[in-house]
Formats: sequence, C-alpha cells, structure tokens
Amino acid sequence: SEVKKIAVIAGDGIGPEVVGEAIKVMKKTEELFGFQFEFEHGLFGGIAIDEKGTPLPQETLDICKNADAVLLGAVGGPKWDNNSKELRPETGLLGIRKALGLFSNIRPANVFDCLKEASTLKPEVLEGTDLIVVRELTGGIYFGEKFRREGASGEEAVDTCVYNVQEIERIVRQAFEIAMTRSKRLASVDKANVLETSRLWREVVNRIAPEYPEVELEHVLVDNCAMQLLRRPSSFDVIVTENMFGDILSDEAAMLTGSIGMLSSASLGEGSFGLYEPVHGSAPDIAGQGISNPIATILSVALMYRLTFGYHEAAQVIEDAVKNVLDAGHRTGDIAVDKSTAIGTVAMGDLIVAAM
Amino acid sequence: SEVKKIAVIAGDGIGPEVVGEAIKVMKKTEELFGFQFEFEHGLFGGIAIDEKGTPLPQETLDICKNADAVLLGAVGGPKWDNNSKELRPETGLLGIRKALGLFSNIRPANVFDCLKEASTLKPEVLEGTDLIVVRELTGGIYFGEKFRREGASGEEAVDTCVYNVQEIERIVRQAFEIAMTRSKRLASVDKANVLETSRLWREVVNRIAPEYPEVELEHVLVDNCAMQLLRRPSSFDVIVTENMFGDILSDEAAMLTGSIGMLSSASLGEGSFGLYEPVHGSAPDIAGQGISNPIATILSVALMYRLTFGYHEAAQVIEDAVKNVLDAGHRTGDIAVDKSTAIGTVAMGDLIVAAM
Ligand SMILES: CC(C)[C@H](C(=O)O)[C@@H](O)C(=O)O
Ligand SMILES: CC(C)[C@H](C(=O)O)[C@@H](O)C(=O)O
Repeated sequence: SEVKKIAVIAGDGIGPEVVGEAIKVMKKTEELFGFQFEFEHGLFGGIAIDEKGTPLPQETLDICKNADAVLLGAVGGPKWDNNSKELRPETGLLGIRKALGLFSNIRPANVFDCLKEASTLKPEVLEGTDLIVVRELTGGIYFGEKFRREGASGEEAVDTCVYNVQEIERIVRQAFEIAMTRSKRLASVDKANVLETSRLWREVVNRIAPEYPEVELEHVLVDNCAMQLLRRPSSFDVIVTENMFGDILSDEAAMLTGSIGMLSSASLGEGSFGLYEPVHGSAPDIAGQGISNPIATILSVALMYRLTFGYHEAAQVIEDAVKNVLDAGHRTGDIAVDKSTAIGTVAMGDLIVAAM
Repeated sequence: SEVKKIAVIAGDGIGPEVVGEAIKVMKKTEELFGFQFEFEHGLFGGIAIDEKGTPLPQETLDICKNADAVLLGAVGGPKWDNNSKELRPETGLLGIRKALGLFSNIRPANVFDCLKEASTLKPEVLEGTDLIVVRELTGGIYFGEKFRREGASGEEAVDTCVYNVQEIERIVRQAFEIAMTRSKRLASVDKANVLETSRLWREVVNRIAPEYPEVELEHVLVDNCAMQLLRRPSSFDVIVTENMFGDILSDEAAMLTGSIGMLSSASLGEGSFGLYEPVHGSAPDIAGQGISNPIATILSVALMYRLTFGYHEAAQVIEDAVKNVLDAGHRTGDIAVDKSTAIGTVAMGDLIVAAM
C-alpha cells in the first residue's frame, strides 16, 4: 500500500516516551498488514521554545501540513508556565489547531474494566458509560478578538465569542454522523437561555436534525449537562458542543470514567487529516523515569487508523492487544493496585506489540 | 427589634409551597427571638408573564428595592420555555440580578448525613466535602453585548465577555473574607491560558492576595477544576470564579454532594441586602401536590439570617431543627428511601417549626 506520512511531535515531559511506544506499535502493523509509514519528527511546545524560541516553529507546521496525520505526545510543564503568552506551550497548541484547520475534537470517554474501581463514581452509576464528546475546536471565545481597554470604571478586559452558521454546521453534522455509527443518541449542549451564539447553535442543530431522523436529539443546557454527566453518565452517547463548554465537559467526562490515563483523542479537519494525542498531559513529575503509561498514546494510533486511514482491522488488533495485556494483569504504576508489580513504559509497549 | 421588610417572590411550580413553609419558620423566630418581619409579595417569573405580560414587573422590582432581603421560591416551567426571550422566566432572573446589583452568588455545597448515599460519588471520596462556590453574577458573557451580524461566511452570532478591575475586586475580596471565616483556603478558577478576562482576573486576585496572608490561595484552570471537583471534592473550601464558569461549577459541585434538594443559595449586593433561594428548580412535575421538600428554602432563611441580618443564633436554631427532624427519620418523598413513609411539604414544615 501507499506510503503514509506521519508527523511525530513528541513534545515535553513524558511525551517522547509514550510516543516511542506508539511508533513501535505502528511499525508492528507495517509487518502485520503491509502498511508503510514515513515518520517525520518536529519540535513543538516547551522544547521548541527552548530550542527555537517559539512553541510552534514553521518547520514543524510544514511537517504537519505535508503529513497524512499527526501523532502528538504532550506539551507543557512548569518550566514554561510563567512565560509571556507568545512563549507558552498552550499558544502553540491553539496555533496548530487553527493553522491545520482542526475544527473538531473527538474525545471518547469510556471505562476500562480494570480501572472501574479507579473512578470516584459508584460502579453501578458508571456501568455502561461509553460516550464521545465532540468539541468545536477553532471557534468561539478561544479565537475571538481579545483586548484590554480603559472603561468607565477603570481597566477592563474583553473576550469575544463568535460563531458563524458554517462553523456550527460542520461540527454538528459530524456529530450526527458519529451518532449514526453508535447508539444514535445526540445531546447538543449550549446555554441558549443566555447566549446569542448558543441560540444560533440551537437553530442550526434543529435545522440539521431532520436530515438524521434516526438520531434521538436532546438539547441540554451546559450547567445541567455538568450535573447530568454525574447523575446518569451512561445515558449519554454523543455530546456535541462549542469550544469552551467542550473544554470543561470533556475533562469532566474523562475524569468520571476513572480512566483518564488511558483515553485517546482526535482533532480533525476537513477530509481525513487528523491530529491524535493522549488526553493525559506531559506529567513532568514522572518524565524520564520510564514509568509512564503508553496506552493512551497507543490507543490514539488505533483512533488514527480508524478515522484517518480506515485501517479498521489493524485498529481492532491494537485495541484487542491492549485489552489482552491488561486482562493478563500487566500494569504501569499509574494503574497498578500493587505498585511493586508495576512494569515500565517500554515493557508495556513490548507486551502490547507481542500481543498483536 | 426593628421591623425587617422581606420581599417574597414565590414564583412558579413548587415555589409557593416551599416558600409557605419558610415563612412559617420565620414567623416562629418572631415568637422565639422577638424579630419583626413585614412580608410583601411580588409576582415574578412565569406567573408574572401570565398575569402581567412580563417576567419582572416594575411593582415587583419596587417591592424588592424597598425590602431588606428577598426570599425567592423558584421560577420557570415548560409552559414558558418556547416563549421569545423577553417573555421567558430566565430573563426576569437576569434582570432582577442586574437591577438589584446582586453581584455575588454564594452556593454552599455540603453533604447531609442522611443523603450521603444519594450521591453518585463513593462515600469515601465525598467524606468531609463542605465547600462554597462564590460566583460573580452581574458581569462577564451573561451581560456583555450580544448580537447577530452578516459575516464573510454568512450569518454569525456574537457574545462579549467583559470584566473590569472593580467588578473582579469586589467579588474576589468577598471570597477572601468568606475564606477567612472558614478553613482559609481559596481556589480562584479561570482560563488564564486562553482568555484575556481571565488574565485580568488572575492579576487582580494576585494583587489582593497579600491582604489576606493567612489564606492559602491556588489558581485552578476551569477544565482542571471540573476534574478536581470529582477527584478530591473535600479538598476545596471556597471557590471563586466568574459568572459562566460559576454557573457550570456550582451546579457540578451541588450535584456531587447528592444533596441538591437541600441546598440553599444567596445572591448578595453591596451592603447587607441579599436574595435567598433554594438551588433546586420549580419542579413543575410535582407542583401542587403538597409533596415537595421545603428544607432548601428553610435553610435559605437561615442563610438570610446570617448574611443579611446577623441573626446567627436564630440561624443555628433553624439549622439544628432541620438536622433533628432528619435525624428522627422524617423524609419528604425526594429524600425518602422507603417512599411509603414519606411526609408532605406542610408536615415537614410543621415538624421543623416544632423542633425549633
Ligand atoms: C491548554 C489549553 C489551551 C487547552 C484548551 O483549553 O483547549 C487544553 O485544555 C485542551 O483541552 O486541549
Ligand atoms: C436560568 C439561568 C439564566 C441561570 C443562570 O445561568 O444564571 C441559572 O442557571 C442559575 O444558575 O441561576
């Protein structure tokens, strides 16, 4: 098959370690399925600030633009937290989303059997929870005009939240499409009783809904959604919402599963291009010790195979291998009940490769 | 003692029933403590739309402005949900906050012993949870300019989030003061890595912090806060945040206690004036059946006594009476394990009055 170009952005903290294992898994699928990948590495985040003076160097952006998909580790750390805005890793993250047109963030939140107990929710409440948050990623208050000005009562700061019909349509349509491949339930989250952008959002959702008569649609106010996620998490299937609400709700949903160290994510643009990364952060406290958990990054590869390449069989092989290794009782420190038996990053990667 | 004027806004759904019991409790304190209250009733919300054609009639606003405190039941219901913006109960709620200058919403989230099991969180995680969310209530994206316009790619909607230094200062200072009366821990929640209003917010918090050297301050990003509330609820004491984030986080915090039917709230302005209401809504499905739980409204009276009138002893008597009645096993339907033994709204009110 055709050579696929993968931009690899290892990033900061544990990023390089977990990405290393994910690449091993991808190489194993080259053997098993005859895929061909060409990996190009780029600097991004804190390490790019240190080495290039900017969190998102042009070379890195070019590598991504030339690639079929991007595999990202993690960015950030206390070292750069007090930098000025242009020299912060987050600025690179927002920049890459905008530059690559990644308007959709897909965040599955499901419960891993072996981690059921890690959730702070009661197991009977969590039972059956398997939802996806579809978050709009390049609009809203994140990217609207922001500034300071002198007001009548002194200095004031302004952020602007803007959405146009087309931005709402494309993310909502994608959410309906995803719902069609699952349990056909869609919750659209907004604050239509207060915000004009939410009222437009709801109008667009209601206009598109008749195209998907099989999908059961509910409108949920964001405050209520924050509650319902706690009260009845398993009743959600696909949740679609704007950028800021999605930031909050996708993290709440991830945390309630108890499986945050295992969750993968995809940021998609037009066509099949996508950026894939684990939900967990750069964990600077454990970086370089070889003890981090590579599973979320490995599962991000499976997501890449499904969403960008349509390699469903290989994705299944990866997901099954992860499951088998966990079922056999192997654990990295973060998910081990008995820490003394925990294995390291590379050992976990090797076991998963061996199980494929 | 001097006569205190109380504006009573029963509102919709179960509002009138629960407010009726709260007034009985206030009258009992007139007997016990020699307080004198003058109650003036005003129409508000759905009922005001039906009877006066507006959710917030000028008479009602005048009654509130002439009062020392406002007792509110609940507003809203499906009947008015599809009304145009000016004819919706929420519009009255936003209007009354602005007109009365209620810039601070105080939402205690604590766990009632008898309701520990009602939470979807594990009891050991919930243990010791007793926090207060202090939400800015008259600024931010709720009240900034909102409009539609034709953009380059079609119709777009705009909301504006604005905060000035003075608005941030007064709410933050109040939160520090509240923290001083409690465990002296304050979490300020923002999204300073993205929003200009959050950067200003954080600057102001850091500028005020040295005035309260005993208070342990942490800055928490809103997405992280949504997670930490689930992971370690008991580690929070006072949380202060802007309007939209406060809307989401205070509801999340309330839900995780499992005690949402029992929680009270205060909305405060300059001076001692305040509006007090239960956190639960108008529950139109059970309205008029005499089965609603009046405890949250009764506890809102205790909050009024503490925050507006400084009647701490009487507040304690009310809170103790509620506790004793619950400890004796009396339950309304919403909190009864065995529904067949549940008592009604009036019976619950009577028992609390008798226990005072
Ligand atoms: C780091 C931050 C800018 C970012 C966001 O808010 O989008 C992060 O929280 C995320 O969700 O990817
Ligand atoms: C009804 C709505 C406008 C209101 C708000 O968002 O402030 C409500 O959710 C609240 O928290 O009191």
